[in-house]
Amino acid sequence: MSASCGCLHIVGLGPGAESWITPEVSAAIASASDLVGYGPYLDRLPIRDGQARHPSGNRVELDRARHALALASAGRRVALVSGGDPGIFAMAAAVFEAIEQGEPSWRAIDIAVCPGISAMQAAAARMGAPLGADFCAISLSDNRKPWSLVARRLTAAAEGDFVLALYNPASAARPDQIHEAFALLRRLRAGATPVVFARAIGREDERVEITTLADADPGRADMATLVIVGSSATRVIARDGAPPFVYSPRGAEPWQ
Amino acid sequence: MSASCGCLHIVGLGPGAESWITPEVSAAIASASDLVGYGPYLDRLPIRDGQARHPSGNRVELDRARHALALASAGRRVALVSGGDPGIFAMAAAVFEAIEQGEPSWRAIDIAVCPGISAMQAAAARMGAPLGADFCAISLSDNRKPWSLVARRLTAAAEGDFVLALYNPASAARPDQIHEAFALLRRLRAGATPVVFARAIGREDERVEITTLADADPGRADMATLVIVGSSATRVIARDGAPPFVYSPRGAEPWQ
Repeated sequence: MSASCGCLHIVGLGPGAESWITPEVSAAIASASDLVGYGPYLDRLPIRDGQARHPSGNRVELDRARHALALASAGRRVALVSGGDPGIFAMAAAVFEAIEQGEPSWRAIDIAVCPGISAMQAAAARMGAPLGADFCAISLSDNRKPWSLVARRLTAAAEGDFVLALYNPASAARPDQIHEAFALLRRLRAGATPVVFARAIGREDERVEITTLADADPGRADMATLVIVGSSATRVIARDGAPPFVYSPRGAEPWQ
Repeated sequence: MSASCGCLHIVGLGPGAESWITPEVSAAIASASDLVGYGPYLDRLPIRDGQARHPSGNRVELDRARHALALASAGRRVALVSGGDPGIFAMAAAVFEAIEQGEPSWRAIDIAVCPGISAMQAAAARMGAPLGADFCAISLSDNRKPWSLVARRLTAAAEGDFVLALYNPASAARPDQIHEAFALLRRLRAGATPVVFARAIGREDERVEITTLADADPGRADMATLVIVGSSATRVIARDGAPPFVYSPRGAEPWQ
């Protein structure tokens, strides 16, 4: 679209497994002249002759977005590589924020977002269908929003009896939020509410732990963990010799 | 896992475009002895010799789930085909509900959920990153839950200042819910709040309409429409000669 014929694809690799990468994303990566992204994501991709790589650290989203936009603006075919779905707690919002703040010419760049499987979807698939009814997705990171807003949203989600998918539950720099979140949720929801810690889903060391709100140890959650907290309707199906299934019935009255 | 070696893959086709179907889903469909699903979804798939097809109508989810489980239990390799992501307002919850209510032996069936791109992700990708911050996904259908619960959740979502993704906004049998939902949201959110109607995304006749809560005509939504209602932080970036971008900054303070 721009005179220089550059373009920017913001692509989602999904949570880890190659079999979850869509053909659209694979094609955008294969045809790119330049790959931009967090280093470990780029490391997952095969080396191609003539394709430039621009790895960056994990706390510089806005700088990375600007770099990708500048390359596309200069006529390069850029794939900006994101984990999960770029549109869900990932790189797409940073790109549009950079566009709004940046060069007016950036608004004319040919841009496409290529969706991917987000962590909550992969986690849910591994244990049944915990997100089968109305749900909220909340990032517990307070890097860019005050904790009071996170607490307000957790409270509202509990009032609405939503299933909760909690992203970024903890990091080395923020070990306490998940404890505060659980303390808040325990005041608002029954102790028997199903809770799942899903770690590194789609990678070799993936792990799913199914427990209850009363029994959960929030300290189990780290940067690679997605936490799901059930609604009052979420159910656990016991099985002999296998992990239970967890699902949220499509309606409030599952037995009709 | 079961003695009969039957298995059930619950697979998500995404919203329509083939380039959004994951390799995992394509492989499960290719290797199935039996395909079960809503007729129009099965019609999207190539005919394969020796592969049986079991199409059904769109309002018999639980019967369809039981049929798929019975086939797997009898030793067939079944792919139960769902639109979008089977785990998000689609077939996976119906299967686990059928298991909980059904034959005890069904709990031993080898089952896998294969996630897909859900409608909200495809819609978001087409316009920017409206789901880039905390959001709720709500089905407006009251087939299986009372409208009072839908209203309670819309109210809670507004109190939490979440972005909203509204599934199943209307159908021929339920033309009024989306009007009631907008009437409720207009009392709780600013008229300038961005609203998007995304219809049939990934199909030939896809259409995206960007408006505001004050100006939106809820009658524009039908069964094939996904509605996104912004939070107080959701922004619209105007462009010359092109549709605007819509995005929700990752934090509450986008300009830091």
